Amino acid sequence: MNATINTMNATDHDQDIATLMAAMGQAARTASAAMASASAAQKNQALLNLAQLLRTNAAALQPANATDIERAQAAGLAAPMVDRLKLDAKTLETCAQGCEQLAAMTDVIGEISGMTQRPSGIRVGQMRVPIGVFGMIFESRPNVTIEAASLAIKSGNACILRGGSEAIASNRALAALVQQALVSAQLPADAVQLVPTTDRAAVGQLIAMPDCVDVIIPRGGKGLIERISAEAKVPVIKHLDGNCHTFVDDSADLSMAVRLADNAKTQKYSPCNATESLLVTRAAAPAFLPAIGRVYADKGVEMRACAASKVMLSAVSGLKLVDATEGDWSEEYLAPIVSVKVVNDVDEAIAHINRYSSHHTDCIVTDNHSHAQRFLREVDSASVMVNASTRFADGFEYGLGAEIGISTISFMRAAP
Amino acid sequence: MNATINTMNATDHDQDIATLMAAMGQAARTASAAMASASAAQKNQALLNLAQLLRTNAAALQPANATDIERAQAAGLAAPMVDRLKLDAKTLETCAQGCEQLAAMTDVIGEISGMTQRPSGIRVGQMRVPIGVFGMIFESRPNVTIEAASLAIKSGNACILRGGSEAIASNRALAALVQQALVSAQLPADAVQLVPTTDRAAVGQLIAMPDCVDVIIPRGGKGLIERISAEAKVPVIKHLDGNCHTFVDDSADLSMAVRLADNAKTQKYSPCNATESLLVTRAAAPAFLPAIGRVYADKGVEMRACAASKVMLSAVSGLKLVDATEGDWSEEYLAPIVSVKVVNDVDEAIAHINRYSSHHTDCIVTDNHSHAQRFLREVDSASVMVNASTRFADGFEYGLGAEIGISTISFMRAAP
Repeated sequence: MNATINTMNATDHDQDIATLMAAMGQAARTASAAMASASAAQKNQALLNLAQLLRTNAAALQPANATDIERAQAAGLAAPMVDRLKLDAKTLETCAQGCEQLAAMTDVIGEISGMTQRPSGIRVGQMRVPIGVFGMIFESRPNVTIEAASLAIKSGNACILRGGSEAIASNRALAALVQQALVSAQLPADAVQLVPTTDRAAVGQLIAMPDCVDVIIPRGGKGLIERISAEAKVPVIKHLDGNCHTFVDDSADLSMAVRLADNAKTQKYSPCNATESLLVTRAAAPAFLPAIGRVYADKGVEMRACAASKVMLSAVSGLKLVDATEGDWSEEYLAPIVSVKVVNDVDEAIAHINRYSSHHTDCIVTDNHSHAQRFLREVDSASVMVNASTRFADGFEYGLGAEIGISTISFMRAAP
Repeated sequence: MNATINTMNATDHDQDIATLMAAMGQAARTASAAMASASAAQKNQALLNLAQLLRTNAAALQPANATDIERAQAAGLAAPMVDRLKLDAKTLETCAQGCEQLAAMTDVIGEISGMTQRPSGIRVGQMRVPIGVFGMIFESRPNVTIEAASLAIKSGNACILRGGSEAIASNRALAALVQQALVSAQLPADAVQLVPTTDRAAVGQLIAMPDCVDVIIPRGGKGLIERISAEAKVPVIKHLDGNCHTFVDDSADLSMAVRLADNAKTQKYSPCNATESLLVTRAAAPAFLPAIGRVYADKGVEMRACAASKVMLSAVSGLKLVDATEGDWSEEYLAPIVSVKVVNDVDEAIAHINRYSSHHTDCIVTDNHSHAQRFLREVDSASVMVNASTRFADGFEYGLGAEIGISTISFMRAAP
């Protein structure tokens, strides 16, 4: 009997969630029309309102944030995870500045390009328009609520946000500020809606409403993104992981190569844009490898080396040197570990990267113009760099404002 | 026993198809790297080679084409369907000219925009790159093989084509010419592959290989596109139907409005860009409706009218006048039928179109600048027009070369 009752309850409950999500979807679709036709001044005003509200409500947000933090601590979450939940004045100030940076950017909506007169007499051009409604599913950090909301506002889209259950109280409080900012700018509150429940069934609904949601953007761990990609009924803008490469070419300036490989690996180990694999040409290796090995040894970075590079690294005292296996070339360590491989030339480097890279960010260090051009053209990754640290792959560094997922970067080399 | 044996055969057979498609996918992925790095000159040479081969092989293609036509006739296909299979000299010449038009267009691959110097010192820009591999699934007309292949070549992509079973012999013969054209330009033959089997299991495989195929483009009937969208594991670029509107505003030039509504409806009834619904403001209706009613009556076009428009059309002799139902506003007739509705103003017209249009092509006829600008900004359709016939929605008319599906048009107002 109990089983039967539970089943019935579950069904009723699922029905409630479906009804809730359908209503949110319809409201988002309606709001998206108003957002698409909003003036740049209105959208920028909403962003500036939001920046102001984040600053003036820094104290008022604390009780909600404390609820999340206490729940997380009680549940025994690891300290770094608890830290990521914190909405302190500094985090809020960064969010506010992000909103202001977006407000200061040119509004590209309505921009017309390629206007030509055709032989028939018609004039034809292409106008940039909003997507409509995006659904965003993210984990943990509540400031993502502001980043997603601010990008939706600037780009004239509506969005439905589904944050992590750990941050539900903070997210609700932040979403209320976003809606206040929208309304103060005569924009619809429903342009940014937060899913109010932490029930997982809501995610299943959100990713399967093609009539109401045009695209889903997951931001979080590989498991989350893979699950959503497999089950979504609308396009998913995604990037699973960041196995980034730094390739040191024959003509690379040795000192620059060492500084870049150092920064790209050790400036921070956890981000998706940290270099996980070094490639170096046979000619550059004898000078480069002992030099970078010395740096890594001092910083405690383990090197997983191919046979050729191992020989050249063996004299570096104190270096953790391990034989690389085939699996290492695909690995995203997010740790003080780097794989290293000697290649013959730029061709082998490009082929290796296109095979093993996660297509996030890859860099060539070179002084050879044609190698640089070939690398930019032939490496199939979202960010392709010449003589820069892969750590620069970032929406703010690129002047594109807040990122949404790590997929702002995927837009950077949009297909024609 | 028989059942068991059949099951085993089916399993073996499915396995064969899976193996075939996986091999084609891998070959396409490999070829896509060469296509992405090919020079504009090489790609254009392949297109010019193909144009030449289509002309010189016009006679040689006839036996393969005759096989398809005889099979279709034997199967009792309707004459218009059989006609669509024909690869006569005129059709081939059109295909050849399409290839030449594409070759003459600027190559946008490698185009860099928005290059800026950032405060950190890095320089950042955005480069247009190919998509990689697209899969195209289409019905009936074999010339689509050439259109898809030529767009793949120009855009530096590889593709896997799956044509209709009715045209399999013609498609094989055309694909052989495409591969010959590629090889003559030192490009990989595998850049354009035709699925050699008509087995439906091949489609199921093609749309579920995210490692090898980046996007699927279906071109065909609504049923085909819906089925593929529901089952695909990769993004689908699609447009299901064309419920296009022509809206006659207060300030419309009466004679222009009648000519446009005439052309948009009657120039051809079957295309997706034909107007299916007329909207007219209360002020413009008394002059416009009897005039267009006269034209449609003479051409045998039935009008499904709202109550207000029916009154104004009732005096038109010989007009087939029917009461419109709610369903008519969503209908794509593809026939000598048009729905007609009187609206209060441009606001109601935009709201009606955004609700009922299939977001393909919608037009305003007006002399009011701000109404024109609002219509362009606020109507959420792939093509939005001012004072033009919706029949102009076409890749060639827009100067964008061959269309792929009807989705080239969807690209015309690409989201930011």
